[in-house]
Amino acid sequence: MLEAIAAANVGHVPAYGADPITTRTEVAFKELFDHDVVTQFVYGGTGANVFALASMLRPADAIVCAAQSHINVDETGAPERTLGTKLITVPTPDAKLRPSDLESVKSMFGNQHAPQPGIVAITQVTELGAVYSVEEIRLLSDAAHSMGMYVYLDGARIANATAALGGTRETLRAFTRDAGVDAMTFGCTKAGGIFGEAVVFFNPTFTTRSVYVRKQVTQLHSKMRFIAAQYEAMLKDDLFITLGGQANKAARLLFDKTHDIASLKLNTAPAANSMFPIIAKAPRNQLQEWAHFYDWDIAIDQVRWMTAWDVTEPEIDAFVAGVRALLA
Amino acid sequence: MLEAIAAANVGHVPAYGADPITTRTEVAFKELFDHDVVTQFVYGGTGANVFALASMLRPADAIVCAAQSHINVDETGAPERTLGTKLITVPTPDAKLRPSDLESVKSMFGNQHAPQPGIVAITQVTELGAVYSVEEIRLLSDAAHSMGMYVYLDGARIANATAALGGTRETLRAFTRDAGVDAMTFGCTKAGGIFGEAVVFFNPTFTTRSVYVRKQVTQLHSKMRFIAAQYEAMLKDDLFITLGGQANKAARLLFDKTHDIASLKLNTAPAANSMFPIIAKAPRNQLQEWAHFYDWDIAIDQVRWMTAWDVTEPEIDAFVAGVRALLA
Amino acid sequence: MLEAIAAANVGHVPAYGADPITTRTEVAFKELFDHDVVTQFVYGGTGANVFALASMLRPADAIVCAAQSHINVDETGAPERTLGTKLITVPTPDAKLRPSDLESVKSMFGNQHAPQPGIVAITQVTELGAVYSVEEIRLLSDAAHSMGMYVYLDGARIANATAALGGTRETLRAFTRDAGVDAMTFGCTKAGGIFGEAVVFFNPTFTTRSVYVRKQVTQLHSKMRFIAAQYEAMLKDDLFITLGGQANKAARLLFDKTHDIASLKLNTAPAANSMFPIIAKAPRNQLQEWAHFYDWDIAIDQVRWMTAWDVTEPEIDAFVAGVRALLA
Amino acid sequence: MLEAIAAANVGHVPAYGADPITTRTEVAFKELFDHDVVTQFVYGGTGANVFALASMLRPADAIVCAAQSHINVDETGAPERTLGTKLITVPTPDAKLRPSDLESVKSMFGNQHAPQPGIVAITQVTELGAVYSVEEIRLLSDAAHSMGMYVYLDGARIANATAALGGTRETLRAFTRDAGVDAMTFGCTKAGGIFGEAVVFFNPTFTTRSVYVRKQVTQLHSKMRFIAAQYEAMLKDDLFITLGGQANKAARLLFDKTHDIASLKLNTAPAANSMFPIIAKAPRNQLQEWAHFYDWDIAIDQVRWMTAWDVTEPEIDAFVAGVRALLA
Repeated sequence: MLEAIAAANVGHVPAYGADPITTRTEVAFKELFDHDVVTQFVYGGTGANVFALASMLRPADAIVCAAQSHINVDETGAPERTLGTKLITVPTPDAKLRPSDLESVKSMFGNQHAPQPGIVAITQVTELGAVYSVEEIRLLSDAAHSMGMYVYLDGARIANATAALGGTRETLRAFTRDAGVDAMTFGCTKAGGIFGEAVVFFNPTFTTRSVYVRKQVTQLHSKMRFIAAQYEAMLKDDLFITLGGQANKAARLLFDKTHDIASLKLNTAPAANSMFPIIAKAPRNQLQEWAHFYDWDIAIDQVRWMTAWDVTEPEIDAFVAGVRALLA
Repeated sequence: MLEAIAAANVGHVPAYGADPITTRTEVAFKELFDHDVVTQFVYGGTGANVFALASMLRPADAIVCAAQSHINVDETGAPERTLGTKLITVPTPDAKLRPSDLESVKSMFGNQHAPQPGIVAITQVTELGAVYSVEEIRLLSDAAHSMGMYVYLDGARIANATAALGGTRETLRAFTRDAGVDAMTFGCTKAGGIFGEAVVFFNPTFTTRSVYVRKQVTQLHSKMRFIAAQYEAMLKDDLFITLGGQANKAARLLFDKTHDIASLKLNTAPAANSMFPIIAKAPRNQLQEWAHFYDWDIAIDQVRWMTAWDVTEPEIDAFVAGVRALLA
Repeated sequence: MLEAIAAANVGHVPAYGADPITTRTEVAFKELFDHDVVTQFVYGGTGANVFALASMLRPADAIVCAAQSHINVDETGAPERTLGTKLITVPTPDAKLRPSDLESVKSMFGNQHAPQPGIVAITQVTELGAVYSVEEIRLLSDAAHSMGMYVYLDGARIANATAALGGTRETLRAFTRDAGVDAMTFGCTKAGGIFGEAVVFFNPTFTTRSVYVRKQVTQLHSKMRFIAAQYEAMLKDDLFITLGGQANKAARLLFDKTHDIASLKLNTAPAANSMFPIIAKAPRNQLQEWAHFYDWDIAIDQVRWMTAWDVTEPEIDAFVAGVRALLA
Repeated sequence: MLEAIAAANVGHVPAYGADPITTRTEVAFKELFDHDVVTQFVYGGTGANVFALASMLRPADAIVCAAQSHINVDETGAPERTLGTKLITVPTPDAKLRPSDLESVKSMFGNQHAPQPGIVAITQVTELGAVYSVEEIRLLSDAAHSMGMYVYLDGARIANATAALGGTRETLRAFTRDAGVDAMTFGCTKAGGIFGEAVVFFNPTFTTRSVYVRKQVTQLHSKMRFIAAQYEAMLKDDLFITLGGQANKAARLLFDKTHDIASLKLNTAPAANSMFPIIAKAPRNQLQEWAHFYDWDIAIDQVRWMTAWDVTEPEIDAFVAGVRALLA
């Protein structure tokens, strides 16, 4: 992707998206989804979520999301600040929303003391490493639409999800366009990019104003070709699926080499590229001295292991050896 | 109106507008405008403006208004805070907007670096005491609508305007409903009420969400009957027009008795119930010791005289005598 | 209070709080709390909460509150819209926050991906009818202050709480001023007023800007004397405590006369003036045809009974008879 | 700078600014200003302005700026949306604010119907190509501080300003740190960067919360080293001053070769790297077919010519030849 940026760094071209690379990449997204989607590039993940939601919200709307969703717990209240909107959070075991979770908001409709549930926001792969099936998204979307709500998908890890569910463009279309998603993000940074994210609108209702909303929420890059160029590289020959598959495979390898260590409590293989093992404080700290991974739920000694697309088997083996030395 | 409040203070009734007085008064507004308007009661003038505009705005919309408008200079930035919206202010001699004033915003449409002009907000009677004619509002509305904008009318002094333009319900309908106004406020406090304002929506587009927006912008009164009761009294036998006419007449009387004092520079008779004379600092301060009126533009020694519906001719004569003793 | 409004409706006085009644009432609040409090009058309860919190918040602050708190579930997202702030909601059995509830937010401090817990917001009497003891508020305030947070108390039912905890001015001071509350509302509407609420600031940090913030959040009443006059009446001879006590007593009476009906599941006497009995759908609907009370948690057939200060024993007996006819 | 990004793209490092490049560059800024500044990196120019202002604002503050300022006319209302704040715009001939311009806001202080002027926001180089002298900024800052306001400097073109005023680090310190600027942006994108901007806080008041505010306004980049690396390159051997000087020199060259063409009305040499000539529609459109420059004020046929640091004299000569062929 860095090569793509370097290649884009030639000559003087119009700013703010009126350049040939951006135009080509917008077309590449239409081909990817085989649909007349509108794609807009922004700077980052939180900005992508805020921008997309800002384009979708109606007056007094609220957003229904899993309690563990990124927009709720990992964005410093950016949605509340910029959108002025309540997040209605639903407790879930795996950060997945289910149609039955929408039951709890039904009493809000028509109640003037409550904001009106307007958007169901999901994350694929979820923040807890789960992957929605095509059917799960379709049923949730049907339920949301029947209640007058839109469906938004945070696709920061769309590459991993696509690889996990089948690994083709048809896979991607099935769990987004065909399953009733109205708008989504298509992750770049977590897939290996330098900076930049893409928002894809399936529903044209939102795009009459989204071009202005993007700048209003501080997410319009003047030299947009540098973001578009990375996506052009990602979409070419479905590179993002290849990379997502590599990351998923690495996670599976790590699982296979460690799940026999009972104290980790790794009961099920990772659906995509993350695992949430249990490691006590002392060995955890020793491991983190040389291997980077985040604490997840410190109260239960849970951490998060994520694998990148470029991790090698020798690197995994070295890490596993470190784990075994401390735990097994 | 106090009697109306007292009469409403009997027994226990449902709260939040589900009471018979509120229902009756909503119907009274439909009859007043001979139109299926939706009327919603709120606490105050700034709240009425913010609530109505919040119900009308689309994403990335901006509001075009006269530089001297109340929403721009007299509301502590409430519109910017609660609406998150830019006011595009147009300098005017009399706080009236004209179709030509909309020319200056044309270049903003379609420019992603500019918010999109979405609402033209006018005040009738204007903050400088001018009254729009029916024709002036119609031409402005036509221009606004042709550019895709809505028209909002701040009617804090709607009673004075109605009296000034003809003094009948037909007058009121002509410069609002028939002239293309999409939503308006219908003033209570400045017309003699204890508290409360009404927002009238002509355009049903805004009312799918306005019932929720009202509470969201902190303007839903639980004991709504006390606001509605005041309006019921105001609308009965067109009391508001009678009171507005009395206030206007008092202003005319004050003008007739003072315009010969050259230093006041009262060149034209008041269109409604306000005048903006010039009085030097020393006599101004002496007058203000016993007569309440506001400074307007201190840099040019300009003050504002407003007449209330209940001022009597002897009171006016006493004030005029005071003015003459100091100035003539 | 209506008489107080009528008495205030004489002559022309300065607007926006510069009148003698408002000044007197501000002093009356200083006497009530025996402290140099700053009291500001606003229109309504949601506005009072939003105004007070807006005056207290620092950049990137969040508000910790019980999941059942009024600001979270009953204000149509007004705090999120006007404050742009996240509410961090804590599940509780009785809508009371405890020092241990603050443990869960500790990990947010210093984490740039999380808003910073800045205010602990409590309600006294709570939304579930519980009354914080003096000690409970003091311990919670101490915990909050030690973490760098302020304490805000929603006192919509402050009259009932004061009556329940002892019924004197000293009682009130003990659970507010002396217990570490930084700012609070002092309810009027629920205590019998026509309209208007008061916000009382104990901590002078917030009042350098609060006078401007009040208008900015649409809560400045031009004819402020009509609100102040009601408070002057409420505070005179501690009328609010008398009325709060009457309402509490009526609730106790209702409890005494009904708690033997096992299906209601009224196990403990009301702490103030509300009870939350269980009544099946059919009898519930029959009762609601002639007696006004709200459903609370429809999923478990729970309703809310609240008693007003002016309810009489014969009225209670009539209601009890109705309940018995259907349930006993 | 692309090389700097490529060099940063090695190995796995901590995200969100906890990497060695970011740390080194933060120190480099302290050395640049010879002051304990806090520097925070963000994505873009509008985001930098919004983030800095969000960290500086107090409740009910307003921002004083030139009518032509970027935050007012070129950011789609982002400040109003994310800050909820009014911009008080002052008409100026050259987009420079002067101490006398602050007179007009004096009457707002202490007026509860007006937001409180809290920040004076200036742009150096201004949007009209003017450069504030050290003395001009000092006098303006003194006036602002004496009124209780802070000073914010939008330094999107800080490189050009530094080169224009002397071309040394001492120059930069003189018109920022020493002249009373409280916070500023330090431009990257307009100075040749791929993406990213820096906000520099001189006043430690703002930095207790700014680390959280950055993410809250969607401006925290996970892979921050890619922004920091560009700044490290820019600051090394004062590269930014060199590049700024080259751009300014190119503008001077263009002026020298064209100012004899009377119709352009280029009366004074450019202070930095922009000029605003007059060109009629027909030749303007012909020129724009092959040379990229923006229309400025279409009503008077004014355009903006900006020179980049990498433009060569042959390129300038080619452009001048094109201009002469059409105009001379």
